[in-house]
Amino acid sequence: MKVLLTIEYKGTNFEGWQVQPKKRTVQEVLEETISKLLNEKISLFASGRTDSGVHALAQCAHFESGGEKIKQNFFIKNKFNSEKLVNAINANLPEDVKIIKAKRVSNKFHARFDVKEKKYIYKLEIGTGSPLTHGLVGTYKHNLDIEKMKKGSDFLVGTHDFRSFSSVKTEVQDFVRTINYIKIYQLKDNEIIFEISGNGFLYNMVRIIVGTLIDIGDNKISPEDIKIILDAKDRTKAGKTVAPEGLYLKEVRY
Amino acid sequence: MKVLLTIEYKGTNFEGWQVQPKKRTVQEVLEETISKLLNEKISLFASGRTDSGVHALAQCAHFESGGEKIKQNFFIKNKFNSEKLVNAINANLPEDVKIIKAKRVSNKFHARFDVKEKKYIYKLEIGTGSPLTHGLVGTYKHNLDIEKMKKGSDFLVGTHDFRSFSSVKTEVQDFVRTINYIKIYQLKDNEIIFEISGNGFLYNMVRIIVGTLIDIGDNKISPEDIKIILDAKDRTKAGKTVAPEGLYLKEVRY
Repeated sequence: MKVLLTIEYKGTNFEGWQVQPKKRTVQEVLEETISKLLNEKISLFASGRTDSGVHALAQCAHFESGGEKIKQNFFIKNKFNSEKLVNAINANLPEDVKIIKAKRVSNKFHARFDVKEKKYIYKLEIGTGSPLTHGLVGTYKHNLDIEKMKKGSDFLVGTHDFRSFSSVKTEVQDFVRTINYIKIYQLKDNEIIFEISGNGFLYNMVRIIVGTLIDIGDNKISPEDIKIILDAKDRTKAGKTVAPEGLYLKEVRY
Repeated sequence: MKVLLTIEYKGTNFEGWQVQPKKRTVQEVLEETISKLLNEKISLFASGRTDSGVHALAQCAHFESGGEKIKQNFFIKNKFNSEKLVNAINANLPEDVKIIKAKRVSNKFHARFDVKEKKYIYKLEIGTGSPLTHGLVGTYKHNLDIEKMKKGSDFLVGTHDFRSFSSVKTEVQDFVRTINYIKIYQLKDNEIIFEISGNGFLYNMVRIIVGTLIDIGDNKISPEDIKIILDAKDRTKAGKTVAPEGLYLKEVRY
């Protein structure tokens, strides 16, 4: 049977999602905990990787279990009891990662290939940073023109070749993605939230988009320059890749 | 000369404010950094201690400097340059503590004895806790009746003998304090904020007040029971001392 997990984590003390030798990663911590619990070696397949320092409010990942222990312990009257499984996993996890939900899915389901929509938020704190939000936000030295950033973000919405907004460290061939919306708003005086929804994102794409919108908000480039940057299909034309600490994978929709 | 500092810190990795042998405390980290910077041994006097795990948005503490280095480096045309001092200290501090402000004060000033008002907030998250807020909030298993807690808090406002709301581990003789107000509100669905202002607080007083208000919000006692608890002058009559992680020293007024 296949189980889809929804996972929350604070990325600060993980070296990203994906298993790497001798590094503490979210995938490794979860696979080890679940494998021990179910007494079988399971593998997790996530909606996508997250980088070192990036957080998730609701990452999704599936695993397949053929073992008997899941049937013996997490089924009640032939029905999969997801709450029981969630509690059992969480009881064995460290404080920086937590299962929010578990759901039985069809054997054809795949957490990466079946993604229809992904939402990210980026939290940007204005100023030199605070001890209480350290690791949980990106920072920028002074305030930004939100109206101009909104104007610039309008040019990114829709289906485009986002090669200019992709890290050159990628093996992807097809750079065409669709952005459904970009919202930019303030919850607090000194914090700007960027919320981005799309059908999929290239490597570092959200962080490069935010870095480029910051250049607009700081009057270094104009909102209309986004068109020129998109057309250039050249990473060097876009803004900086902002720090991972402010990035949160907010939702994955299938 | 005397300098008053306003200090922000995340309490998670400190064993409270006050210097203790072989422990990492806020006072010790600050005294060491400032002493090195000014090339003289300085001592900090805070508005009051905070316990292990408790945070501060704006703790206040003064120190006295008789040394030459502060005059040579942080005076411009005979005038104390506080911004320069703040930046120099911050450049040498770890990420979990930061100076917000420095101000020259009269030689008669004392950061503890001159306090007129102190404000604390307590952040309570409903549920089993989240990896992203771990260490930054207290938690409670289910929702609470805010209107009832407000009613109960009304009986605490004013001047009372707060012996029932003081840890028994105290050397204080006079338990009479004045609470100016208690505000209880929600910023997010699953978070309740308690904001308390008073002329001073006994050891663990805010955390015991919050624990007792939770008992009201959870229908274990009635709002009117606060009167009985105050009259009893007995710590065992009040509620639990809630966890330190949710407590923030928000403001000190002189």
